Amino acid sequence: MARDERGVTAQSEDFAAWYNEVVFKAGLVDRGPAKGTMIIRPYGYRLWEQLQSELDRRIKETGHENAYFPLLIPQSYLSREAEHVEGFSPELAIVTHAGGKELDEPLVVRPTSETIIGEMMAKWIGSHRDLPLLLNQWSNVVRWEMRPRMFLRTTEFLWQEGHTAHLDRDDALRETMLALDIYHEVARDLAAIPVVPGEKTPGERFAGAVATHTIEGMMRDGRALQAGTSHYMGTNFATAFGIRYTGEQGREELCHTTSWGMSTRMIGGIVMTHGDDKGLVFPPRLAPHQVVIVPIVRGADTEVLAAADRLAGALRAAGVRVHVDARPQLTPGFKYNEWEMRGVPIRLELGPRDLANGTAMMVKRLGGEGKQSVALDSLPKEIPAILEEFQSYLLARATAFRDEHTRTVDTWDEFAEAVSTGWAVALHCGTRECEEQIKSATAATPRCIPADGDPATGTCVRCDAPSAYGKRVIFGRAY
Amino acid sequence: MARDERGVTAQSEDFAAWYNEVVFKAGLVDRGPAKGTMIIRPYGYRLWEQLQSELDRRIKETGHENAYFPLLIPQSYLSREAEHVEGFSPELAIVTHAGGKELDEPLVVRPTSETIIGEMMAKWIGSHRDLPLLLNQWSNVVRWEMRPRMFLRTTEFLWQEGHTAHLDRDDALRETMLALDIYHEVARDLAAIPVVPGEKTPGERFAGAVATHTIEGMMRDGRALQAGTSHYMGTNFATAFGIRYTGEQGREELCHTTSWGMSTRMIGGIVMTHGDDKGLVFPPRLAPHQVVIVPIVRGADTEVLAAADRLAGALRAAGVRVHVDARPQLTPGFKYNEWEMRGVPIRLELGPRDLANGTAMMVKRLGGEGKQSVALDSLPKEIPAILEEFQSYLLARATAFRDEHTRTVDTWDEFAEAVSTGWAVALHCGTRECEEQIKSATAATPRCIPADGDPATGTCVRCDAPSAYGKRVIFGRAY
Repeated sequence: MARDERGVTAQSEDFAAWYNEVVFKAGLVDRGPAKGTMIIRPYGYRLWEQLQSELDRRIKETGHENAYFPLLIPQSYLSREAEHVEGFSPELAIVTHAGGKELDEPLVVRPTSETIIGEMMAKWIGSHRDLPLLLNQWSNVVRWEMRPRMFLRTTEFLWQEGHTAHLDRDDALRETMLALDIYHEVARDLAAIPVVPGEKTPGERFAGAVATHTIEGMMRDGRALQAGTSHYMGTNFATAFGIRYTGEQGREELCHTTSWGMSTRMIGGIVMTHGDDKGLVFPPRLAPHQVVIVPIVRGADTEVLAAADRLAGALRAAGVRVHVDARPQLTPGFKYNEWEMRGVPIRLELGPRDLANGTAMMVKRLGGEGKQSVALDSLPKEIPAILEEFQSYLLARATAFRDEHTRTVDTWDEFAEAVSTGWAVALHCGTRECEEQIKSATAATPRCIPADGDPATGTCVRCDAPSAYGKRVIFGRAY
Repeated sequence: MARDERGVTAQSEDFAAWYNEVVFKAGLVDRGPAKGTMIIRPYGYRLWEQLQSELDRRIKETGHENAYFPLLIPQSYLSREAEHVEGFSPELAIVTHAGGKELDEPLVVRPTSETIIGEMMAKWIGSHRDLPLLLNQWSNVVRWEMRPRMFLRTTEFLWQEGHTAHLDRDDALRETMLALDIYHEVARDLAAIPVVPGEKTPGERFAGAVATHTIEGMMRDGRALQAGTSHYMGTNFATAFGIRYTGEQGREELCHTTSWGMSTRMIGGIVMTHGDDKGLVFPPRLAPHQVVIVPIVRGADTEVLAAADRLAGALRAAGVRVHVDARPQLTPGFKYNEWEMRGVPIRLELGPRDLANGTAMMVKRLGGEGKQSVALDSLPKEIPAILEEFQSYLLARATAFRDEHTRTVDTWDEFAEAVSTGWAVALHCGTRECEEQIKSATAATPRCIPADGDPATGTCVRCDAPSAYGKRVIFGRAY
């Protein structure tokens, strides 16, 4: 088939083109009619459901409760927190008419829910006994995007947003870090993305936050992707919405609040961390299909199809997500290419000769030794272990890639070179002006002050002023 | 405590007031700031999650795939199907401004997704091999409500909407009935609502449908609640959006499509089917907590608390959803009332004397014999069976109530009397004018032509014209 039908542009040739081709051709996504919106197709949505169920379990196990707050928020709510409204105003979609009439007060389609949840927290919290209040919601949010990219920046996206209220700063900070730890674990252990947790510099904070923590992943073009954030709001939203409690001594106090979110952006992160010139590579723990069986059927032979179904049943009983591709109109070769492009970790080919031998041919999407003949009987036992190996292999490969493309630098020349292919770890003065200059010169921004960074002080890599933060900062170009 | 704090209005005194008090006091819901919107609080959301996971499993097991389509739909899409736009226009919320600018074309916040999904189906379907296309999405929709009621009619609600495309009428009708069967099963077997499945009369059809099928439940005030609907669209949407396929003979044909939805309205249905003057009664299969353990602690005694936790662990291991209410500041009596009001099927009271005897006191929310002393050791074995009995009891009770409040009638006087307390099963001429007259006179509307109704013909109960449909129609006042 012609390259524009089946193949994809090489990553090294044009990474952005590769990404766009692969997310569409693999059937993850399609373009929505309104600017910057996307349709998440079944194959992409199953990946999201896998991630969602794992993340939801962890959120509940740590004591949070799911709830649902309205999509439409009175515009005035946004204005109550000055930085928040400044940050979000340019991105708002606004409902001015409803039920056949112009509304007295316009409603914004939620870009995030701190304001409406803050208003309700103020109503629900009376005493210190009501704290901590630990809420989460799974929802869609709308932020108008000028330069949309599927999964990474879309006008509407799906996410969870945690919102919590606490007695004091310590408890709220503990919660902020707990949420970050959950994100770190989900990214590393499920998505096989070796993210770096750390704090954002003041210039990169969430609008209205006192501190923003992030996990940053490195994509295969060396750029950073912010894959989840957790914010400590101090008493900013508590002041704006009147979130107060009566303490044990009868004194009224302001709550300290947090919020944290992880979104469908993670799908883009998975694509760009593991994919290659053949297409997607999905980590087994999240892959919609962990194994695809391609039966090689000649003519009206139904024995092979029946054997493929039996094998699928045995693998399912062993806890494997397996799909049998029995489409009669397509050749085995076409299917091999398609499932490679769609990132399935393991392919099993089963023809009449294999069946006669009691074997199948196994092909791993990556890190394999070509085709291997494996006894059918042993597959239900072996496949789960092979999938776990594959998962570890992806994380190790991505970690090696990240480390190879991360350089500790002390001079501006080294810095500029490092951020052209990856990340620079450098001392920085901490001023916004200097951050802006670096961005203009290299397109790189401070990604985070890494949580596990060693103590370091000296002079700023750009302006020679004394360094801030007591440690080095990671800089990189970002999505 | 004062009645307005703890008690609720009797159902017999004012059912609407009872409903409103109970959904707020039990912590299911709160009012949102924008007109007619609701906040689903954790206790209500957990019920929804139970329903959702059961319904989602059945939708997937029958071959449907989840996907996600955008919230914002170009206004022009709605206009392409004439009846559809006429039906939904008065209820639309419209985004006119976004990203700081007035939009060239306004976007509607989806009231339902036939149009945007139809547009994509037209793009994705080429050959007969692409059919059937079986999609489902879990989403929020917005329909501007003039007379909102929590869960029953809210400006925004949560639901799933199935959308499918088929080769021909037969296959689409089979799908329409399959979805209705799933809803019937979920309503009856999980929510313990003995719904009646049937077809809507033409005047009650979904805007744009050729046939609408429904499940109708009877609430404890005798009114009907439409609890799920499944629509056969014929080729109406296929024509409007160009959903076509090339058949085996190479001829281009229009698809036949369906859509079907069940929503958070079901929560209101559960409340109004099983609740009583003490508050909610939740069916065990959907109850967030199937069992609440109230430890009776005197002073600093921690033994009872430890025993309550052990019992909870043993029940959890037996698959029971259990909550220990260890709040120190509240009396056991307060907790008993609260969990009764919140509809927990079984309460276990555990005090020092019980513990010494190796027993707990068990109280069923309904159909019980007062307090029963039960050996702690036997609870993990007995509770699951008692919960199943409770579930059956609720369905049987609701079925008896429905049957007692349903009358087959042949005269107008009987009809008017029957619909003042329940349902009338009557012959009808099938004209919209006559339906309208009945509605003006009694507030009753045709709920459905019941699927299992016996053949019957004669004259219309209202106008004496010859009857339609070949069977009797169920009429009732409805939510």
